[in-house]
Amino acid sequence: MAFNVLVIHGGGPTAVMNASLYGVLEEAKRNKEIDKVYGAMGGSQAILRERFLDLLQFPEEKLKLLLQTPATAIGSSRYALTEEDYRTMPAIFKKYNIRYVLLNGGNGTMDTCGRIYQACKEEDIRVVGIPKTIDNDIAITDHTPGYGSAARYIAATTAEVGEDVKSLPIHVCIIEAMGRNAGWITAASALARKQPQDAPHLIYLPEYPFHEEEFLEDVKRLHEEKGGVVVVVSEGLKNEKGEPIVPPVFQTGRATYYGDVSSHLANLVIKRLGIKARSEKPGICGRASIAWQSPVDQDEARMAGREALKAAVRGESGVMIGFIRDETPDDSYQIHVESIPIERVMMYERVMPDVYVNERRNDVTEEFVKWCRPLIGGKLRDFIDFSDYYYMQ
Amino acid sequence: MAFNVLVIHGGGPTAVMNASLYGVLEEAKRNKEIDKVYGAMGGSQAILRERFLDLLQFPEEKLKLLLQTPATAIGSSRYALTEEDYRTMPAIFKKYNIRYVLLNGGNGTMDTCGRIYQACKEEDIRVVGIPKTIDNDIAITDHTPGYGSAARYIAATTAEVGEDVKSLPIHVCIIEAMGRNAGWITAASALARKQPQDAPHLIYLPEYPFHEEEFLEDVKRLHEEKGGVVVVVSEGLKNEKGEPIVPPVFQTGRATYYGDVSSHLANLVIKRLGIKARSEKPGICGRASIAWQSPVDQDEARMAGREALKAAVRGESGVMIGFIRDETPDDSYQIHVESIPIERVMMYERVMPDVYVNERRNDVTEEFVKWCRPLIGGKLRDFIDFSDYYYMQ
Repeated sequence: MAFNVLVIHGGGPTAVMNASLYGVLEEAKRNKEIDKVYGAMGGSQAILRERFLDLLQFPEEKLKLLLQTPATAIGSSRYALTEEDYRTMPAIFKKYNIRYVLLNGGNGTMDTCGRIYQACKEEDIRVVGIPKTIDNDIAITDHTPGYGSAARYIAATTAEVGEDVKSLPIHVCIIEAMGRNAGWITAASALARKQPQDAPHLIYLPEYPFHEEEFLEDVKRLHEEKGGVVVVVSEGLKNEKGEPIVPPVFQTGRATYYGDVSSHLANLVIKRLGIKARSEKPGICGRASIAWQSPVDQDEARMAGREALKAAVRGESGVMIGFIRDETPDDSYQIHVESIPIERVMMYERVMPDVYVNERRNDVTEEFVKWCRPLIGGKLRDFIDFSDYYYMQ
Repeated sequence: MAFNVLVIHGGGPTAVMNASLYGVLEEAKRNKEIDKVYGAMGGSQAILRERFLDLLQFPEEKLKLLLQTPATAIGSSRYALTEEDYRTMPAIFKKYNIRYVLLNGGNGTMDTCGRIYQACKEEDIRVVGIPKTIDNDIAITDHTPGYGSAARYIAATTAEVGEDVKSLPIHVCIIEAMGRNAGWITAASALARKQPQDAPHLIYLPEYPFHEEEFLEDVKRLHEEKGGVVVVVSEGLKNEKGEPIVPPVFQTGRATYYGDVSSHLANLVIKRLGIKARSEKPGICGRASIAWQSPVDQDEARMAGREALKAAVRGESGVMIGFIRDETPDDSYQIHVESIPIERVMMYERVMPDVYVNERRNDVTEEFVKWCRPLIGGKLRDFIDFSDYYYMQ
């Protein structure tokens, strides 16, 4: 007898979330025990509304576009499920002959994954998590699908902006990277450098208190030296009290809204140092960029989808697919996949370890660069560089 | 007897400024009458400091990288030359056996070009302008090298952000495009659309007064309809009095600094409509992107470089190379090059004509799209689209 699969997407998209979905589909096609693969159209609440789209009905040439479609083709949500919601799920799954439930998402979604697993424990329904987040903040796994592409984007973009600022060295340029509590994306901007003097010239992570005076000191010194300075900062920089460095813009019933860290710091440089400064905040552009999708990330995301379905078919449940990095004799990059018990990853936020950050907390270490480099999937474009001749005569 | 060429870059970089430089080099190599091609290292003040780098000394495989190097490899500036500066130039050119002076830049640089031409009129020195600006605001020419790539970037990015916002429709997303006085780049975001319902859903240009209440009305209606809304705005939006819509952040002796239009409008949406909103401001990332460099723009920029040198060798001076769009029987895209007297383009800013903008001034017309489409150099990526199924059952 054949069974159906249900794939649910949760939280903010990445450049390779659809690649994981494609991985599930290709594995399903290979497996005679699988009949339909349903997409939950619009995130976890689609389970309750039974909004299921049979994805294998579409021709392969169309499905292949999943690999180059950003965001999520089946939709996502930040819907908060209730205890009652979880209790109704087993009956819905059985109604649609769904034996394999795959949740693709970050920390919040892995929490949901664990709860659905608990709710379905008495039935022969297998619930497996596929990790996904640009923020790279999921526990245990070496890294998460989605991160490599966000890392490649920020590295490539910082390199390009670096060329711009070097060629017209009239300002300090502050680039804001996503990742409110974890600095992994911000840190990856260091991969822009081909030479030590290249941009980014300063990197500030949300894991360490931001000291305004030290920042201004560093910017001033670099501006005197280079003219143009490129600084990459996390959107979530905090002061020594752990409060956001940007004053709140205003408060609604539900949330506090802060201004942008990048424009706050650009204004600070202008006001305090009298140096021209500007801010760039690519924001969502960075997580949706297919031009800078990392081929390694795409492959791994696709693999995570395949492996999640395989694990479910093997009978595993209540696990998330994780990547374990292998030691290799020649130091080449290699990972293998393991099933990680979901309670080990639920709602735990993984941040940058101290060993990846320099002592002044304004740059990353070579160790971080070595760890991160394979994930961005190949080197960035070569540029011609006449900067040795810039100050001739 | 052979003569030398001098190339000077002025103002803000583009993604194809170096492609024009490459065009000059390839034309120079073909011409036995040319000996050296000097780059003025660091913009117009490099003339006075005699900072000239002989570019033909580098091997072809290195020079070819100019086509994929953003910004300007020889450096640029916003240096304001004095009358005295202009008077000293003819002697410097003669000292270096420079007969051909090519200035690559926007409106300000074309002004400089005209003044150098005046200063060199009595000598056999030919001064020719190569147009360049992402803003597309140079007079007479159908469009400028640099614009097609900036247009391709904003169209592709808006399409990608559109997928993101469609798949997780929880907010209004305001994307800020460069172009303070001319809306050409902002308008090009319309090329993101494959279907009429696609992003961008609203477009606001700096040529027309921005009406806050109409904007809020439009956003509210679209949010009720779609959930996620994508708005593209020019960084230079002004109110009915012609003042920037963003209050000044502060004033220094030299300049007034304003906040970002995108975050200002996102805050307005949150405060006034109680709808979640966020802003993206790729800024310099958009003019430096090689991934989204338009192949048509690259070709044309290269051609402009070649044609500028050809014109100078022919004996022309005080002209700028311009593109004239040809009428073709099958409506296919074709341009030819003409030399435009520099006084006709000096310091004139070309803005969007009314015929390219809809009546409510919140979108462009089909006529604009038809004009712009060939410039971005081929279609954008195809995405898989299940949105017809989003609201199934």
